[in-house]
Amino acid sequence: MEAVACAIELIHVYSLVHDDLPAMDDDDLRRGRPTCHKAYDEATAILVGDALQPLAFQLLARDSSLPQAPAVRLRLIDMLSEASGTFGMAGGQAIDLEVQGRELDVAAVEDMHARKTGAIISASVLMAAACAPDLAPARYEALAQFAAAIGLAFQIQDDLLDVLGDVSTLGKATGADREHAKPTHPSVIGIEASQERVHLLHQQALDALAPFGERAAPLRSLAHWLLSRNY
Amino acid sequence: MEAVACAIELIHVYSLVHDDLPAMDDDDLRRGRPTCHKAYDEATAILVGDALQPLAFQLLARDSSLPQAPAVRLRLIDMLSEASGTFGMAGGQAIDLEVQGRELDVAAVEDMHARKTGAIISASVLMAAACAPDLAPARYEALAQFAAAIGLAFQIQDDLLDVLGDVSTLGKATGADREHAKPTHPSVIGIEASQERVHLLHQQALDALAPFGERAAPLRSLAHWLLSRNY
Repeated sequence: MEAVACAIELIHVYSLVHDDLPAMDDDDLRRGRPTCHKAYDEATAILVGDALQPLAFQLLARDSSLPQAPAVRLRLIDMLSEASGTFGMAGGQAIDLEVQGRELDVAAVEDMHARKTGAIISASVLMAAACAPDLAPARYEALAQFAAAIGLAFQIQDDLLDVLGDVSTLGKATGADREHAKPTHPSVIGIEASQERVHLLHQQALDALAPFGERAAPLRSLAHWLLSRNY
Repeated sequence: MEAVACAIELIHVYSLVHDDLPAMDDDDLRRGRPTCHKAYDEATAILVGDALQPLAFQLLARDSSLPQAPAVRLRLIDMLSEASGTFGMAGGQAIDLEVQGRELDVAAVEDMHARKTGAIISASVLMAAACAPDLAPARYEALAQFAAAIGLAFQIQDDLLDVLGDVSTLGKATGADREHAKPTHPSVIGIEASQERVHLLHQQALDALAPFGERAAPLRSLAHWLLSRNY
């Protein structure tokens, strides 16, 4: 499973490097350190992202530590490519740039988040599920619901931290969403309603895990961390 | 096989869109039309490339028209990711940007070309070979030699056209290599010696095809076209 986690992280890091570019979110700081294009230059940041992306698919295609059958590996590649492309992070980022300065309703904001961060979080959960032999379809569906709930909760919490968070704890600048006039939950429904939405999604995530009993304890911890995090 | 050709073309187009970016080769014209970042904007061009790349791997992972077994599909994904990443186009472009204004010997120029254009041309030939059931290793090796020869010949011809070609026929600006002080065969060994190298590589490519007899006629046509093209 390490190879699967590593492939997902490669796609995640590639998208952060590209999202930070001057033509995109133009961020100078990421995880408390200069972003790739600040530490090196724009061309390097573009090419680093371009090289990380195929590495993820190559890992799933050939890493010898993966015990999964070829057909399962193909399914993992399919899921990760979906989360990375038009219906995932690249498409979500395109919508994000497109809607800056525009008014959106909460459904449109949530659709954007479903692609931009929801797809990769769902892929993280469901690619693991796809590796489980003979998982019942109802169980897979429950995990999909869990992932959708924590994915959206994560993004709303992220947008709340951009308003309420502390630069030194976060490791990145705050106030960026307002600066770019991005429609977010806090800007569309307000801070208090956004916090309530996070709590509701947290409850939905826990409800989805009910059928798994004690075995889902790590996923419950993940949901709790999302709710309480300040970075 | 259409899905394989389509996947390779997706990777090829993605790399052209990114290579044309202002932070990279800064080209305004491609195939006689405005480049993606000129027609739209930089962010769009970055995201178009980012979305095309996973689409290529997804196509190989799930296109139902491909009769190949899952293990063969994984091999195709492995080959294409290798041609796209650090040891292929992304790495070659990084070297290309790194060496501008520097003096290279012809071996270093050829190493750069092997990644930048050689890898994807070799992948185009060898991914087709990988689909052939029970191809003898010696035959696979002969095709690899053919691909390496035409890949390098293609790039030298491309650099010659940048010096000698006509904008209206080429569909892109000429003189860009000199403007960016890029080390190329014409700049390192001169025009005449570069033309001789193309002829020699053409002969090597034809020699490699000898064992295939008449069945390799389309590959011979390809080699002839590379030698005579003016666009």
